[in-house]
Amino acid sequence: MTWTREKRYKKYQDWGAQELLELQTKAANSKTITHYHIHPISGLINDPNGFSYYNGEYHLFCQAYPFGPVHGLKSWIHFTSPDLVHWQYRGQAINPDTDKDNAGAYSGSGFVHNGNLLLMYTGNHRDPDWTRIPYQLIDEMDQKGHFHKWDEDLIPQPDHVTEHFRDPQLFEHEGQYFVLVGAQDKKTKTGQIDVFASNDLHNWHEDGYLHFTDKDMGYMIECPNLVFVDQKPVLIFCPQGIDKSVVHYDNIYPNMYIIGDQVDLSKAEFKTNQSSPLNLDEGFDVYATQAFNAPDGNAYAVSWVGLPDLSYPSDNEGWANMYSQVKRLEIKHNKLYQHPVKAIESLRYDKQEITSGMQTGNQYEVKLIIKKGQKGQLHLNANQDLTNGLILDFDTGTDAKLIIDRGQSNPLVNSDYGTRRTIPLNKTEDLDLDIFVDHSLCEIFVNDGEHVATLRFFANEGDQTIGFTAGTQVNGILWKMKSIL
Amino acid sequence: MTWTREKRYKKYQDWGAQELLELQTKAANSKTITHYHIHPISGLINDPNGFSYYNGEYHLFCQAYPFGPVHGLKSWIHFTSPDLVHWQYRGQAINPDTDKDNAGAYSGSGFVHNGNLLLMYTGNHRDPDWTRIPYQLIDEMDQKGHFHKWDEDLIPQPDHVTEHFRDPQLFEHEGQYFVLVGAQDKKTKTGQIDVFASNDLHNWHEDGYLHFTDKDMGYMIECPNLVFVDQKPVLIFCPQGIDKSVVHYDNIYPNMYIIGDQVDLSKAEFKTNQSSPLNLDEGFDVYATQAFNAPDGNAYAVSWVGLPDLSYPSDNEGWANMYSQVKRLEIKHNKLYQHPVKAIESLRYDKQEITSGMQTGNQYEVKLIIKKGQKGQLHLNANQDLTNGLILDFDTGTDAKLIIDRGQSNPLVNSDYGTRRTIPLNKTEDLDLDIFVDHSLCEIFVNDGEHVATLRFFANEGDQTIGFTAGTQVNGILWKMKSIL
Repeated sequence: MTWTREKRYKKYQDWGAQELLELQTKAANSKTITHYHIHPISGLINDPNGFSYYNGEYHLFCQAYPFGPVHGLKSWIHFTSPDLVHWQYRGQAINPDTDKDNAGAYSGSGFVHNGNLLLMYTGNHRDPDWTRIPYQLIDEMDQKGHFHKWDEDLIPQPDHVTEHFRDPQLFEHEGQYFVLVGAQDKKTKTGQIDVFASNDLHNWHEDGYLHFTDKDMGYMIECPNLVFVDQKPVLIFCPQGIDKSVVHYDNIYPNMYIIGDQVDLSKAEFKTNQSSPLNLDEGFDVYATQAFNAPDGNAYAVSWVGLPDLSYPSDNEGWANMYSQVKRLEIKHNKLYQHPVKAIESLRYDKQEITSGMQTGNQYEVKLIIKKGQKGQLHLNANQDLTNGLILDFDTGTDAKLIIDRGQSNPLVNSDYGTRRTIPLNKTEDLDLDIFVDHSLCEIFVNDGEHVATLRFFANEGDQTIGFTAGTQVNGILWKMKSIL
Repeated sequence: MTWTREKRYKKYQDWGAQELLELQTKAANSKTITHYHIHPISGLINDPNGFSYYNGEYHLFCQAYPFGPVHGLKSWIHFTSPDLVHWQYRGQAINPDTDKDNAGAYSGSGFVHNGNLLLMYTGNHRDPDWTRIPYQLIDEMDQKGHFHKWDEDLIPQPDHVTEHFRDPQLFEHEGQYFVLVGAQDKKTKTGQIDVFASNDLHNWHEDGYLHFTDKDMGYMIECPNLVFVDQKPVLIFCPQGIDKSVVHYDNIYPNMYIIGDQVDLSKAEFKTNQSSPLNLDEGFDVYATQAFNAPDGNAYAVSWVGLPDLSYPSDNEGWANMYSQVKRLEIKHNKLYQHPVKAIESLRYDKQEITSGMQTGNQYEVKLIIKKGQKGQLHLNANQDLTNGLILDFDTGTDAKLIIDRGQSNPLVNSDYGTRRTIPLNKTEDLDLDIFVDHSLCEIFVNDGEHVATLRFFANEGDQTIGFTAGTQVNGILWKMKSIL
């Protein structure tokens, strides 16, 4: 099937129910779809949107295209959770059903206001000649789950930016409302974060581009996201086209962060001692992470596991992409640490001590300590002779590092961007790994969240062996993990 | 909206995807839908079908109409589970897409054969003049979840039965294949269970109507289901129009069972000492229970919670009906006992001792002992002054009985069939109750499964008080229950 533009932007009401039922059935029977991580009911999801706590539960929305594993006419779908682990699908939320969002209800954020949840998003409007006009819009959800779209284009595209003006983050800071918008400067064609302020949510003025670095952030910044972690402002964002001499990265586009000392949004100033942003995830497949400050005092983040402009081997199963688990953020040693939330432990069952050669299944968590001063390999979802599978190549001696190698699992995933990722470790220390596998998804938390590496990988369904290089000193626990979706 | 016949039998491919998405969203946001009992994704479910163990997991299919809370063009949808508690939706299974099932893929059973799962069902064929021809068909599912419909009408409607000839149960017994079919005799217009035998699954001969009682079973028997419990044959079935002098029942149609001593299917004989069948469930809303003998040695049953020809207050929320939890069957004192399966305990969390006036939420289990020699009331999901809610009126003295009264909860449910059900108890014994509430569903297991009463009820969302008549001696535990769907 060829996904022409015409087909991808066909109105939802012009699709047939039978096609949708078949696609949902195909996704539901996929052997590689996740079962304790958010996935599409059918078709594609990408950026997390509107991540928030409202009306006694957590809300998470997804950029979604229900009719195929491609980027088509986007809507928001909705999940809710009592604990950030057990998610319930709540169906369609923002539909692309007005003129202002006629080519998609694009990404945005959630903000609780006057007892309702304001979902601010970019209406992706296309003229008949396919020229884009981005509108910054609000869809307001009440306690009964009813939606009401505001009429206003709240922040018309400024003259000095191109059509690439999207992904509004709406929040309150020091008594004023602010919106950060990802933008491309018209003159310099550089990626920027444009800051707007308001006292009433209706009348907005521009504070200017956020100054958070002197370095060139490439040609576009997507998904700007300011969150406070341990009292410090942290800016999470996706710079596209950033030069690898500024920050090294291996993925097609990186997801980065920078920790500030303070932020003065009225002056569009983000003060930091960090010379450059850092990669948020050291795996292969994280993008568009969205974080928010929850009422419990924590900052939580969730990531799209997938990347723009790439496809995955499972796309032919009627669905594309999933989300990471929710990660609690912390600052330690001037770095961002990411931790599984406590409630993920409620999914564990069938606890076992790990021995090399045992069978893990393909939905599990392993926690293990690899003693210092060793070199070797950990194989996950390997065949019996360990020649296929996901490989973690570790050195806990003086040249301490962890190499994640998905080049020995089949089919390969976007190998144009390399099949290995290297995480530098501290010399001669024990290595602490907390690894979550959910079918074709793997999340590796290294040394209590100092590093996180998230990736897709594809093993043969029957390849479920965990194995170590002979003689490795390792202590580990395996739990099977329950399904929540 | 008027559900004309034309609309109800519109082909699935003539419905729009947008309508389906909206209906799924409405159901997903319903405040009364269940969260640990199987429910429709949208529209209606009724009879459980194809309940079986195959390829390492339990399978349960549902009679389903996805496009509204009404009985329209039926298909089978599919759920799987590792433990009979955690169910995963697997989408559409048997679709009404051939001439033989052009007006619906009606109820049937699952039978593992040669590594595949045979789903035997009734093709509900309608001629252009709407005359019904029932075909007994097989759709064969392989290990990859692919379906292949056999071409044959395996058991053509015999001359001596009317068009009411449906719900085949296919099984093997003493080296031969058998099918029981619910039937209406053409001459007498009585309900019958017609027995067929085969050595090859293709060529069938009729053994005749199953003789299991001398009494009149009304004008039709639906969903005949033979299962072996503790080595005894048990026949579960739904007689329609049975005279209340034969067996008393209150519901529009009963779901009954009879325990046999032995069964000789070649002679269509079911020998029993029981003079009449008994009600399987003593609540308001159980029908079409399907049971099967699992490889673990147990017989498991699951019930449609809903009744033919009736509607429910939640029907306007885009969905209709749900299933009971799976019940393990046992014979004790010549009666059928029904027990929750062990794995249901894995849903429990937040254990608390019960005190009168405490808040339960609306998704919970309570287990309690009411000491003998007491009269009083237990209120569930009541308001604070206990004037609204579900009432269990108990007497554990010499006039021992339990009355379930849903007449004080609003809106009322099918009150034409009464608002109270009475369960006789043994005199002066402690009363043991295990009660499961899942929003608008309540299941009450009495005295370790000697009686089960299943019912829908509707409380105000905020009415979550459990209360006792002052002075009642009671010990009880409350658990909240996790969501699985």
